[in-house]
Amino acid sequence: MPDLPPDEFRRLGHQLVDWVATYLEHPEKYPVLSRAKPGDLVDALPAAGPEKGEPLDLALADFEKLVLPAVTHWNHPGFLAYFATSASAPGILAELLIAALNTNGILWKTSPAVTELEIVVLAWLRQWMGLPDDNFGIIFDTASTSSLHAIAAARELAAPEVRTTGRSHRTLVLYQSEHAHSSIEKAAIALGIGQENVRKIPADNAFRMKTSELEHAIRRDLEAGRQPFCVVATVGTTSTTSIDPVREISHCTRHRGLWLHVDTAYAGPAAIVPEFRYILDGAEFADSLVLNPHKWMFTPVDCSILYTRRPEILKCAFSLKPPVYLQGDDQQREVNLMEYAIPLGRRFRALKLWFIMRAFGREGLAAIIKDQCAMAREFAEWVQADDRFELMAPVPFSLVCFRLRGSDEANLRVLDAINSQGEAYISHTVLHGRVVLRVAIGNIATSRKTLKRLWNFLKRNASSKTEGAS
Amino acid sequence: MPDLPPDEFRRLGHQLVDWVATYLEHPEKYPVLSRAKPGDLVDALPAAGPEKGEPLDLALADFEKLVLPAVTHWNHPGFLAYFATSASAPGILAELLIAALNTNGILWKTSPAVTELEIVVLAWLRQWMGLPDDNFGIIFDTASTSSLHAIAAARELAAPEVRTTGRSHRTLVLYQSEHAHSSIEKAAIALGIGQENVRKIPADNAFRMKTSELEHAIRRDLEAGRQPFCVVATVGTTSTTSIDPVREISHCTRHRGLWLHVDTAYAGPAAIVPEFRYILDGAEFADSLVLNPHKWMFTPVDCSILYTRRPEILKCAFSLKPPVYLQGDDQQREVNLMEYAIPLGRRFRALKLWFIMRAFGREGLAAIIKDQCAMAREFAEWVQADDRFELMAPVPFSLVCFRLRGSDEANLRVLDAINSQGEAYISHTVLHGRVVLRVAIGNIATSRKTLKRLWNFLKRNASSKTEGAS
Repeated sequence: MPDLPPDEFRRLGHQLVDWVATYLEHPEKYPVLSRAKPGDLVDALPAAGPEKGEPLDLALADFEKLVLPAVTHWNHPGFLAYFATSASAPGILAELLIAALNTNGILWKTSPAVTELEIVVLAWLRQWMGLPDDNFGIIFDTASTSSLHAIAAARELAAPEVRTTGRSHRTLVLYQSEHAHSSIEKAAIALGIGQENVRKIPADNAFRMKTSELEHAIRRDLEAGRQPFCVVATVGTTSTTSIDPVREISHCTRHRGLWLHVDTAYAGPAAIVPEFRYILDGAEFADSLVLNPHKWMFTPVDCSILYTRRPEILKCAFSLKPPVYLQGDDQQREVNLMEYAIPLGRRFRALKLWFIMRAFGREGLAAIIKDQCAMAREFAEWVQADDRFELMAPVPFSLVCFRLRGSDEANLRVLDAINSQGEAYISHTVLHGRVVLRVAIGNIATSRKTLKRLWNFLKRNASSKTEGAS
Repeated sequence: MPDLPPDEFRRLGHQLVDWVATYLEHPEKYPVLSRAKPGDLVDALPAAGPEKGEPLDLALADFEKLVLPAVTHWNHPGFLAYFATSASAPGILAELLIAALNTNGILWKTSPAVTELEIVVLAWLRQWMGLPDDNFGIIFDTASTSSLHAIAAARELAAPEVRTTGRSHRTLVLYQSEHAHSSIEKAAIALGIGQENVRKIPADNAFRMKTSELEHAIRRDLEAGRQPFCVVATVGTTSTTSIDPVREISHCTRHRGLWLHVDTAYAGPAAIVPEFRYILDGAEFADSLVLNPHKWMFTPVDCSILYTRRPEILKCAFSLKPPVYLQGDDQQREVNLMEYAIPLGRRFRALKLWFIMRAFGREGLAAIIKDQCAMAREFAEWVQADDRFELMAPVPFSLVCFRLRGSDEANLRVLDAINSQGEAYISHTVLHGRVVLRVAIGNIATSRKTLKRLWNFLKRNASSKTEGAS
């Protein structure tokens, strides 16, 4: 018996379930941000792997002793640095089954459940978000990968000759706001669009793409003989969660036949809340849209969804006549998702979404998201009511961008003080040339108590660290 | 309390651990290949998601009743259709922790353990496989993604102007054998190399790339003013597990400065066995190499490793000056893996590799792989000893390609008979224009008993279904 005997699996499995239950119950035992220094874990582990197998108990002991101190706890209520990744209990339990079944939806027939549950849960979510019914959904690892597929489809529509020859007749140009996520530029580089053919359209004071500037840029490129092919609008930018005017942007794209991709990796799930449905205004004209349940739907990483109303174009971009061992039966209801994607292997990620959507229901998810946005507004009010601080961006979702009135250095010192004390981890950005602190609420366990403690800490540090402010 | 209370997590977690233990102990309860028909699961599930949350027990009951019948059991000893994916117990247990921690190694600082454990386990594996020490490793989801990154790096080396302008000065040409995996061509399409610039070099009778043909093709392209930039050699092709002559191929690539990428997604882990070390002969000259622990290292999907001796080129291909919220501290030992990759998010996949490498040790993994290759040879001997069958390809690893002497139809009928009886799932390919059956051994639970039963079934069916053969 080469693998662990079932009784050993049972014993260790029960032990780990108890460990995880305690971890989820008392995350505050750990500092949110790891205090490890670069190289600490590498130096603590042997330079060579073991010749002979060891009882797994030894690795579990080392996990607690050596690995955990180097872990930054994304699943901690004080994790406020990046968007909102938290693994809810239904999602964690699903991952156990996903790993045990280890089934792989390369083709429909290699595991019908992987493909069909993906179809079902993505249809449910599409309805919850109010997206048009003609959206086809597919799950990838991260938004970077989803957006790369969207832009590849846009290229296929605009310049199908690239697939065959590697060269477009005219230079293809992509448009995004200056606040778009770096993954868009990276995708353009990977796909061979070229960095100089990515236009970064200026944003207004609320960090939203200026449609007039987009329109000018498109016209300039057309006049110069270039071929605009894709516009990426962001709903919930990374720096400030600003919302590009999707409907206005769609006026620029629709009559020209340009592909409109909406990057709503973080904010998309907010559309489940009726009051937030407006954020997708205009998205009914989008050719594709990405959202990440691993950001704000309490789904363990990784899980990113690409919706597209042009699945036939996505398929043209990637489908190959597959070798015999990969041919499906091509029946009408037999969808082979590998034809729409670069990756061939497909984890059973739909199972975690299904568990989460059933356990919380639409109302449950909406209530959490809505409450997190309310907490962000309350935090913003605290900021605005205190002369020592200033709010630096509107708060449409669950991110608060603010700063201590004073120097950048003072802000960085406060940032450092917060992140080294262990109860919270926040991040920073630069807006209008100044250092700005970011509090991103989205962990399922984050409460008003978490935020009140952070705010009290900020106030104490503001008194001691500002320069000139009272 | 929006998430499940810890006691509920505990109760359900223990229940699922017991379920998984039983599943691993008695996989034969389920037919390997799902008997679901297209649409069965979609039709069985509601067309809309639940408004209100439900006890997770209901989803678990539906999982057993509705989802499981649509699952093809990759983790079943009778799963012999595709390469060798099996999730060993240490890997499954690791996935539970990975999901619970939900930590994300975007940057070193966003979770040092993710980056550093990845560095450690990939160094261990590199040593076990005898790869040169200067190989830098990084984990991706699938080999398709790993190879795409390798080819992008090759492009960066050959034509750095593409990153900026989207156009290479000369037409870039990539070479692979006619038996290379379809992911190579797909990557070339995605990266904008163009399908017509992928040369499919003919193979010899043992399905290995003909180096002389490669050499001719390169010369023809050079003479025509095109720019050869990358050769992909496969060690363990998908159809037959043939081994391209990597050392000979490296003679073509080295003096010309072409990038040599070795696709050993399936067979790579065999190099852990000293007797199989020869398969990587010449790979010391490779610029990059991909292997998938989720194929033959008993690691739950997904987990693919890209090694490259040119990490600085990979970084040039993908690194962007990141926005402030993604800037690391750029210390010498602080590696930010997102600079080497399209995906920004990074699951803690290294943890499952670490558990597996410790639990089995090098000797344990080597023993299983060696035994699986021995089982394949034994199966091949049964085939060769029976006049009704013929072996269709050499058996260097754990795949047996054979056919019933008789028509393609007769072979497809036998294939169908095997796959519908529920004890085994095999696949087929076409070699020399004829249908060939593939038995891919690699599931950790597959035993001689599994294979003997399959062989007996084949013999019974051979007697009744061959046409003309005795």
